[in-house]
Amino acid sequence: MSSSEFALTVTCPDQKGLLAAVTGCIAHSGGNILSLSQKTAVDVSLFMLKAVFMAEPEFTTARFRQEFMPIAERHKMEWELHDRAQRLRVAILVSKTSHCLYELLLKHQDAQLRCDFPVIISNHNDLASVAEQFSINFEKIDPQKGRLACEADLQALLEAYKIDVVVLARYMQILSPDFTKRWAFKVINIHHGFLPAFMGAKPYHQAWHKGVKMIGATAHFANEDLDQGPIISQDVVRVDDSLSIAQFTQLGQDVERRVLFEALRLFLEKSVFIYGGRTFIIG
Amino acid sequence: MSSSEFALTVTCPDQKGLLAAVTGCIAHSGGNILSLSQKTAVDVSLFMLKAVFMAEPEFTTARFRQEFMPIAERHKMEWELHDRAQRLRVAILVSKTSHCLYELLLKHQDAQLRCDFPVIISNHNDLASVAEQFSINFEKIDPQKGRLACEADLQALLEAYKIDVVVLARYMQILSPDFTKRWAFKVINIHHGFLPAFMGAKPYHQAWHKGVKMIGATAHFANEDLDQGPIISQDVVRVDDSLSIAQFTQLGQDVERRVLFEALRLFLEKSVFIYGGRTFIIG
Amino acid sequence: MSSSEFALTVTCPDQKGLLAAVTGCIAHSGGNILSLSQKTAVDVSLFMLKAVFMAEPEFTTARFRQEFMPIAERHKMEWELHDRAQRLRVAILVSKTSHCLYELLLKHQDAQLRCDFPVIISNHNDLASVAEQFSINFEKIDPQKGRLACEADLQALLEAYKIDVVVLARYMQILSPDFTKRWAFKVINIHHGFLPAFMGAKPYHQAWHKGVKMIGATAHFANEDLDQGPIISQDVVRVDDSLSIAQFTQLGQDVERRVLFEALRLFLEKSVFIYGGRTFIIG
Amino acid sequence: MSSSEFALTVTCPDQKGLLAAVTGCIAHSGGNILSLSQKTAVDVSLFMLKAVFMAEPEFTTARFRQEFMPIAERHKMEWELHDRAQRLRVAILVSKTSHCLYELLLKHQDAQLRCDFPVIISNHNDLASVAEQFSINFEKIDPQKGRLACEADLQALLEAYKIDVVVLARYMQILSPDFTKRWAFKVINIHHGFLPAFMGAKPYHQAWHKGVKMIGATAHFANEDLDQGPIISQDVVRVDDSLSIAQFTQLGQDVERRVLFEALRLFLEKSVFIYGGRTFIIG
Repeated sequence: MSSSEFALTVTCPDQKGLLAAVTGCIAHSGGNILSLSQKTAVDVSLFMLKAVFMAEPEFTTARFRQEFMPIAERHKMEWELHDRAQRLRVAILVSKTSHCLYELLLKHQDAQLRCDFPVIISNHNDLASVAEQFSINFEKIDPQKGRLACEADLQALLEAYKIDVVVLARYMQILSPDFTKRWAFKVINIHHGFLPAFMGAKPYHQAWHKGVKMIGATAHFANEDLDQGPIISQDVVRVDDSLSIAQFTQLGQDVERRVLFEALRLFLEKSVFIYGGRTFIIG
Repeated sequence: MSSSEFALTVTCPDQKGLLAAVTGCIAHSGGNILSLSQKTAVDVSLFMLKAVFMAEPEFTTARFRQEFMPIAERHKMEWELHDRAQRLRVAILVSKTSHCLYELLLKHQDAQLRCDFPVIISNHNDLASVAEQFSINFEKIDPQKGRLACEADLQALLEAYKIDVVVLARYMQILSPDFTKRWAFKVINIHHGFLPAFMGAKPYHQAWHKGVKMIGATAHFANEDLDQGPIISQDVVRVDDSLSIAQFTQLGQDVERRVLFEALRLFLEKSVFIYGGRTFIIG
Repeated sequence: MSSSEFALTVTCPDQKGLLAAVTGCIAHSGGNILSLSQKTAVDVSLFMLKAVFMAEPEFTTARFRQEFMPIAERHKMEWELHDRAQRLRVAILVSKTSHCLYELLLKHQDAQLRCDFPVIISNHNDLASVAEQFSINFEKIDPQKGRLACEADLQALLEAYKIDVVVLARYMQILSPDFTKRWAFKVINIHHGFLPAFMGAKPYHQAWHKGVKMIGATAHFANEDLDQGPIISQDVVRVDDSLSIAQFTQLGQDVERRVLFEALRLFLEKSVFIYGGRTFIIG
Repeated sequence: MSSSEFALTVTCPDQKGLLAAVTGCIAHSGGNILSLSQKTAVDVSLFMLKAVFMAEPEFTTARFRQEFMPIAERHKMEWELHDRAQRLRVAILVSKTSHCLYELLLKHQDAQLRCDFPVIISNHNDLASVAEQFSINFEKIDPQKGRLACEADLQALLEAYKIDVVVLARYMQILSPDFTKRWAFKVINIHHGFLPAFMGAKPYHQAWHKGVKMIGATAHFANEDLDQGPIISQDVVRVDDSLSIAQFTQLGQDVERRVLFEALRLFLEKSVFIYGGRTFIIG
């Protein structure tokens, strides 16, 4: 089988000669670099690199691993090699509001998200018709069962659908620490506030009462601390002081949907690096 | 002599007929409205109005007050009438960094700030030369005296220079609750973070370690709660994750200076309304 | 029949006493002003006002017209009174790309557009399924007939559906001067360039070859001069110089859809004033 | 003499193995890469690279050139090696408005511009005092002499001060094609419009009459076509339709100054690549 695309991501302490070593190894293994992004976080002496390359006929992942392993060990690298032809399976979790769900489905339909959406899961029936519009399976979790039983059902569904990544597209249910630990760095949530400001419930109400002049949204990895996981993407919109809380909510929805889409896109493109409790977006 | 400009600001519970009553009274008193901004904060049923009008020869403030008083009482209005020819006397307090100070001086030189700057006060000598460049008095407060003695000196200077408003243009000294109470809603501070996130010391360090994707600055009234007074203006700038804390600081300075200028401009234009612990910018 | 909401829009040469006259007349006729926006374009001495008011039981449009007519004549006003309960009938014209169409349909579904969408008209079949998703009639115009015959069919459809306003949501067909004159200020087009730069075909290609650092989109009234009608709304997005024309196109689509939605929203809210060949957005 | 920093810039047709070849040669010559930015403009198959590296004791530019030459020839590279310790000598040309001049001087004072400003040249005396504030030589060109004589004087001054780069910081005089050809890609101009819209005189007037919703500024290389040289940086600000042309001018000044500063900064950092009549900003 012929050539295809791979992405190599590398993180390690900053040292001399890293770029030459990595690019030399890719070239030597039969990889032709299409794009390379490299950043050094000088405050923590961290080297990060993402290289996308085309595999020549002689390239094999086995051979690459063999050649790259000694380099990685010498430089204490954490690294991953991703075959860009493999598409992650992403479950979208929703409750009642549709704007984030539609955004993901429309961008996917427009080939801007390199993944599959095998299922939409919800604790309400409201958005079943949207799933139907796009011919995607819709699964209902019964919120009356209590949180633990719900999460057991959720876990079973994620396994049944062979899900790799979970996107909380305005899913209004708090996940347990057990769940977020099991799915560490694999659950992306959209919060309708400019974190770390306005964590928790009703962020637009909080923002209005504080009198901020811009409101925002934040996509982040969910972890055991509510709304405190590493931030992937953020954006804001300027608000006029004559706007009501209801108008904040409407304006904010446009920010939420673009921030969540961007976060998932960056994640799928292997551009999200994690170090020291925060992310670095590379490439 | 003859006619000149006035600004009328009104705040009251929302009711019927407010606009007709106010504009009718202005017209009847000999005022010719140049611009009017009116907003209703529906979440708290608050009516806010700012009208700028030209006084015809027959207009006198005494007569206007007499005509407006019954209207104001009937509608439980808080109101103020400002003669736009009277310029507030503003003291600028600084420490060592010059970007906010230069911004205010340059905008003032360019006639974009309707006030006088009789004095620059600092706890350091570093910016004395800037004061000299612009021929403004420079007064040094000796930080070795201790905070209370410093504030007494500061208060004495503000009185000696007949100061109306104080602008903290990166003044790195915390003011006492006694001082901020005495000068309530008359001290404007610039904080180099997007409040209410990143209050307190080293906000750019905080922001970097949190991994936010935009950094900001906030101008607010100083009160007894550090960095928690009502917000007047805010702005942000997108940051790339390869930037260092030092680069955050440089980029942030441009945001700080424009936010502080804007806050002072809005204040001087009587556009800052305060209600329920927050501001509303009108007009 | 009880009270309801009206919007009054007024344009006239700037003069003394306009605000008092208008607000007095509204109050006197039984209107209770909910919001008022007033701007004066000083460069052309133009007064513009938009007032939204609640009609008390005694209010009738006939009575209002009778009371307002002499004021309007005295001040040379152009004015309109709109019953906010009456919803305009808007036809959406599309070709093959769906992003603008979806945006309008989703915002409408979310009650953010005060109008009805009785029909989607296209010169291609590609988006028939979208119309079906949202249960809206879809009408095909056959482009093989030639432009004149097509426009005759289009005109017939607009009449059959009793259309008030036409939105060109990436309709890739140039309308004749006859048509745009007949529908003057009733056809809103989205152009995928930051007008007046990059008029005409392939604006993203033009922008890329020029090397601009931001790309934009512009919603404007269509008139007989291609892409030169009065601008209603615009926005831009910063572009990285490593982006391809194809990526410009993807990024630009998000700008196009929000600019077109905003233009239609402003139009429906009676916020678009036209004077001297340009628009003024008021309120 | 110890190690120091160099920047290598490379442009060539896109081919296999470029990154490995370049980074390998730097490493082999005794360079330790600090940062590398690489972009490929796929629409024109253009590879662009900027690498900043620290020179180890064994590094010499002579040796590097010897090693790099065959690589450059094989791949048809245009390339330059810059010693970052060498500071360009920049002349600032001004007329009467000070905002751009102050911006450059203040950023320079704050060590954000890697260059020297040996002289400010003007066709008016208005800004002599600013030059004095910052202790920089001020040279007056007499506009009454006529354009050719003025340019001869200008050229003589640039030579006398050994100038490398000219910045037109709101210099309101059109330069002759002879001059711009002689100084090709070495004259940076700030235009107060969002090019390619609003070329020529009075761009804020043009923008106001067109009714655009955002105004902007553009820094570009001056060439023989007025306001049409390659764009280096741009930005915009949203404008309210109640603003006057005079207010456009004030708001626009903030955009102008930050765009011009950014353009000069990018130029000095060797981040401005030119190809096909446009720029690409790399790194």
